[in-house]
Amino acid sequence: MPNKLRKANLFDPNCSSREVLELVGSKWSMLLLCALYDSKTRTGQLKRKLQGISQKMLTQTLREMQKNGIVKRISYPEVPPRVEYELTDLGYSLAELVVQMERWIVRHHSIILKKRKERARLLKNGPILSGTHAPVP
Amino acid sequence: MPNKLRKANLFDPNCSSREVLELVGSKWSMLLLCALYDSKTRTGQLKRKLQGISQKMLTQTLREMQKNGIVKRISYPEVPPRVEYELTDLGYSLAELVVQMERWIVRHHSIILKKRKERARLLKNGPILSGTHAPVP
Repeated sequence: MPNKLRKANLFDPNCSSREVLELVGSKWSMLLLCALYDSKTRTGQLKRKLQGISQKMLTQTLREMQKNGIVKRISYPEVPPRVEYELTDLGYSLAELVVQMERWIVRHHSIILKKRKERARLLKNGPILSGTHAPVP
Repeated sequence: MPNKLRKANLFDPNCSSREVLELVGSKWSMLLLCALYDSKTRTGQLKRKLQGISQKMLTQTLREMQKNGIVKRISYPEVPPRVEYELTDLGYSLAELVVQMERWIVRHHSIILKKRKERARLLKNGPILSGTHAPVP
């Protein structure tokens, strides 16, 4: 079947949609999309916002996002030259979902920390039996 | 300020919410959440579904998800022993967002491929000028 007629299947490692998943499914891409969601931003500002990202990773992520039509690079012919990055309409629709995920993490952060502590305590005290069920016929 | 009162900030590399982002923001976690969204599943089925994942990565991802209260492991006392993985309520609420993202990728896959081709053609034919704006006062 020609590629254009085949439905994308993220579970298929040979489907090019897997590449899109690899681009989206990374912490730096997700943080970058959140950072660009509010406004277009200069590279230096992005680097400061995404604390811990290396220059190489930032450049590479921005380049991949441009390649996939998610981010556009705007170059202003000024002295010194000014470059900004902005979400495209396509990127904006994706960033909306990523921002929802960011909000989910912020909202559920304390519950997750509690779950971790509970599990650590259970593991310390012996095997976890709560998940054991009676045999299913 | 005590940790429990501090609002999670994913942009802060020292905030424990960054760990949650690292767990969620990975292609394997996203595929795993999509696979578990429909029904509870055995490890072997998960490995077949997530084509390309190594046993080590699958075990590690499942363990991290258990640690964070997203997935639960159900062990049936049968011979041979049977183990299934299921989303918790917390995991289900997260998986709903990830499934939305999966659907976004499937829906926009052909547009993204088109954007890639356009960009490759433009790069071949010379510098991209479309993003250049007049100076902003």
